[in-house]
Amino acid sequence: MRILVSNDDGIHARGLRMLVGGLSNLGEVFVVAPDRERSATGHSITVHRPLRAKKTRIPGFDVQSWAVDGTPADCVKLAIEDLLADPPDLVVSGINQGPNLGTDVLYSGTVSAAIEGAINGFPSIAVSLASYCYQDFSPAGAFIREFIPFLLRADLPRNTLLNVNVPGTERPLGVKITRLGNRRYVNIFEKRVDPRGRIYYWVAGEPLEAQEDPSGTETDVEAVKNNYISITPLQLDLTDYAAIEQLRFLADFK
Amino acid sequence: MRILVSNDDGIHARGLRMLVGGLSNLGEVFVVAPDRERSATGHSITVHRPLRAKKTRIPGFDVQSWAVDGTPADCVKLAIEDLLADPPDLVVSGINQGPNLGTDVLYSGTVSAAIEGAINGFPSIAVSLASYCYQDFSPAGAFIREFIPFLLRADLPRNTLLNVNVPGTERPLGVKITRLGNRRYVNIFEKRVDPRGRIYYWVAGEPLEAQEDPSGTETDVEAVKNNYISITPLQLDLTDYAAIEQLRFLADFK
Repeated sequence: MRILVSNDDGIHARGLRMLVGGLSNLGEVFVVAPDRERSATGHSITVHRPLRAKKTRIPGFDVQSWAVDGTPADCVKLAIEDLLADPPDLVVSGINQGPNLGTDVLYSGTVSAAIEGAINGFPSIAVSLASYCYQDFSPAGAFIREFIPFLLRADLPRNTLLNVNVPGTERPLGVKITRLGNRRYVNIFEKRVDPRGRIYYWVAGEPLEAQEDPSGTETDVEAVKNNYISITPLQLDLTDYAAIEQLRFLADFK
Repeated sequence: MRILVSNDDGIHARGLRMLVGGLSNLGEVFVVAPDRERSATGHSITVHRPLRAKKTRIPGFDVQSWAVDGTPADCVKLAIEDLLADPPDLVVSGINQGPNLGTDVLYSGTVSAAIEGAINGFPSIAVSLASYCYQDFSPAGAFIREFIPFLLRADLPRNTLLNVNVPGTERPLGVKITRLGNRRYVNIFEKRVDPRGRIYYWVAGEPLEAQEDPSGTETDVEAVKNNYISITPLQLDLTDYAAIEQLRFLADFK
């Protein structure tokens, strides 16, 4: 099995090394990752300047690796199109330091690498350690190492990627299949004044505790809060099919 | 009515001026847009450096305007959170020079501004002129001016934004409510060698003619090819609900 690994924390991130360690026994691992941190890049690609890919080494591992001066989506595109001699069987992005839950997946570079894998037709997984302070990636790494063989024995739905969040605790209680929750923020910007009297803004914000809908599938936000690993299937097609019917009248516009 | 305008081609782009011209008679227009072109930024936000917003002028229009040194999503966030005294009634992004169709909406800065509007609960529309060479924005501008009052008389579905593509012709044949088509590319990268013998890559790529599914709703790609204005409702929730059922077995993983 050929596994392409990427991330958005950059090729030198600890979470990426943990992922490579977890996957090395499962097949041949190739790393194509940003040369530095590229968080919150969403699904952006680099079109206004050329990209470079530099052969590099992941200390402690004998895997082919490239550092790219672009976004996570650039990395996966370039890996599939040029750097890898043969297509991968699986794309795994992570392990991100910090959660990628709910509405926030739209901003996530980690998830965007997996989206790019799925766009190209490969089974793809994004993995995040859902804590900014908990530093031990090993429970997440151990989970991935054991979970991926289990996962690959099954038929996975097409055009879907899996967004996995592992709680920042030593012993998660289990796995839940979830939907994306609502992550709204308050106090999104900190407004400051520079030494020359000019205003500038830092993006900040505290997540608002959302009112969860008690019916239906549990959300990823709730599952992780309750110390479960959340797995949310994500789709590539943003079309709101239900709204199409509601909007048919717009076609009468002359 | 208070209308927030943004885009990804930058505050000086002709398409934005055309949009401001089209909307000025409908209500009070506020412009918060990137200080330069920010295409293909996807839904990225700026977290590693502070943002600045500079009061500016759109020549020929008496509207409040700010140029922000960030992405389209940054612009809309900052407008709603701080720059506008009161919330907008409508967010309109565009008019983009070039199509935002099918899978490509994932990469689109134009669409991401409208996504940010919708995340914040406001009716939001992204508008693109679906041609890189056709330079006349006036049919698209005229359409928006007349279409928006028509649109606002109706109840719009919540958590949905509208992605509008206007074909690059003088007289579109009408409006179609569409789903996102498939936009796959071939020859995605051009590989070149610099004067020092090192390889670099330009993202390029030609869109592949997709095999369209003849059943079901027409795609945006087809509608625009046939000289219709496409309107695709997009959702914010990426959860693949159908896949949740298929993946229930994963919760048995111990």
